[in-house]
Amino acid sequence: MEAPRKAARSRTTTQDAVRDIKKYIRDNHLRTGDILPSETVLCEELGCSRSAIREAIRALVTLDIVEVRHGYGTFVSSMSLEPLINGMVFRTVLDNDTSVENMFYVVDTREILDLSLGAELIEVFTDSDRQALLDLVEKMREHNDRGEPFVAEDQAFHRTLLSRTKNPLIRELNDAFWRIQTEAQPLLNMAMPADIDQTIKAHIDIVEALSKGDAEAYRAAVLNHYAPFRRMIAGMLDEN
Amino acid sequence: MEAPRKAARSRTTTQDAVRDIKKYIRDNHLRTGDILPSETVLCEELGCSRSAIREAIRALVTLDIVEVRHGYGTFVSSMSLEPLINGMVFRTVLDNDTSVENMFYVVDTREILDLSLGAELIEVFTDSDRQALLDLVEKMREHNDRGEPFVAEDQAFHRTLLSRTKNPLIRELNDAFWRIQTEAQPLLNMAMPADIDQTIKAHIDIVEALSKGDAEAYRAAVLNHYAPFRRMIAGMLDEN
Repeated sequence: MEAPRKAARSRTTTQDAVRDIKKYIRDNHLRTGDILPSETVLCEELGCSRSAIREAIRALVTLDIVEVRHGYGTFVSSMSLEPLINGMVFRTVLDNDTSVENMFYVVDTREILDLSLGAELIEVFTDSDRQALLDLVEKMREHNDRGEPFVAEDQAFHRTLLSRTKNPLIRELNDAFWRIQTEAQPLLNMAMPADIDQTIKAHIDIVEALSKGDAEAYRAAVLNHYAPFRRMIAGMLDEN
Repeated sequence: MEAPRKAARSRTTTQDAVRDIKKYIRDNHLRTGDILPSETVLCEELGCSRSAIREAIRALVTLDIVEVRHGYGTFVSSMSLEPLINGMVFRTVLDNDTSVENMFYVVDTREILDLSLGAELIEVFTDSDRQALLDLVEKMREHNDRGEPFVAEDQAFHRTLLSRTKNPLIRELNDAFWRIQTEAQPLLNMAMPADIDQTIKAHIDIVEALSKGDAEAYRAAVLNHYAPFRRMIAGMLDEN
């Protein structure tokens, strides 16, 4: 029992150092891409031990708050939702008794986020968006006809769809939940729904509804887009 | 430049060990609260060095995937959104040039999430929810009349409001963005809006709209709830 006790002790100090380094970054107006002082300088400035600083830097790397660039130093990172996404994928698939239900809520969350953007998307939608999105759907269909996955095109579709919306947090959440679904699905040995055609077609309906400014048709198309996943997951839940 | 290079080298190994421990947890059907084997056993099972395992455990603690209980061992943790929330608060307040705008998007995200739940909330709302929520608003008002904050009551209000909704991820996101706003505000020296009365009153309107099953009134009340924050933030953006 020695090792865990040690880890717990050092963790408190690490957390203090994490807090102090974050404060240092703010107080010195460092931004994404800016370099942090060396460990030695941080030790002096913050009055922490070298090992606490080192562990704190590791924790901040884990959280994507700083990044260590091989041979160059430690920099303020982009602070992406990457750690969240990895954690959520793991949490989604962890427990066999609940993983399928968890996937249901991931899909449901994507649907809620998409539906919430209808009015704004109608306002900002342009003809060039329409063409770019329809081109992506065409590629999805080609891949699907050849029995190939179309993950990249699907992600590009949903990113392009939201590219003109004003709230960057909603765009990030949308992409995060897309990734949680996409990464969790194979871990649960979930195939694509048999009626994935309906989802592909629904992408076109989403585009045309926005192009016409038809909020009700957009809503219906979003529901159709997720319906095959809902049905597949409901089927798996019934089996258990 | 020695230290960063070392950190970068060990990080790769750590990430492998992180992946392997996560796989171990899944393959052995461990769940929240279950104990992990000792470091020695993990080293043997996963073929990693002791230092890689130790660093991986630290990374997993940082991500709230495992927790080290002093003197007892390492356990699968609750995998909360805690690391996300801390990271998001930091990211929100980091850059003076964008922090006020970031707050605008945090408030906007809360509003989008609240609005998206109207139809479901109307369906599941009960008389006892109404009473519990009105009691909380009464306490908010009492605190506010005495010039005191009412953070706990406000959080309890929004948690209670969503307590009957079916999607736990949306409940978590709602609470996460509540916390991001609440924790970032003092870091940016943002006071409460001068017209916070309107927000308090809007809580009552939200309750009564749901009680009557009036979706339009719910929508209007949610907009009123956030309006004082929107105005305050817009005023700060105009100043810059």
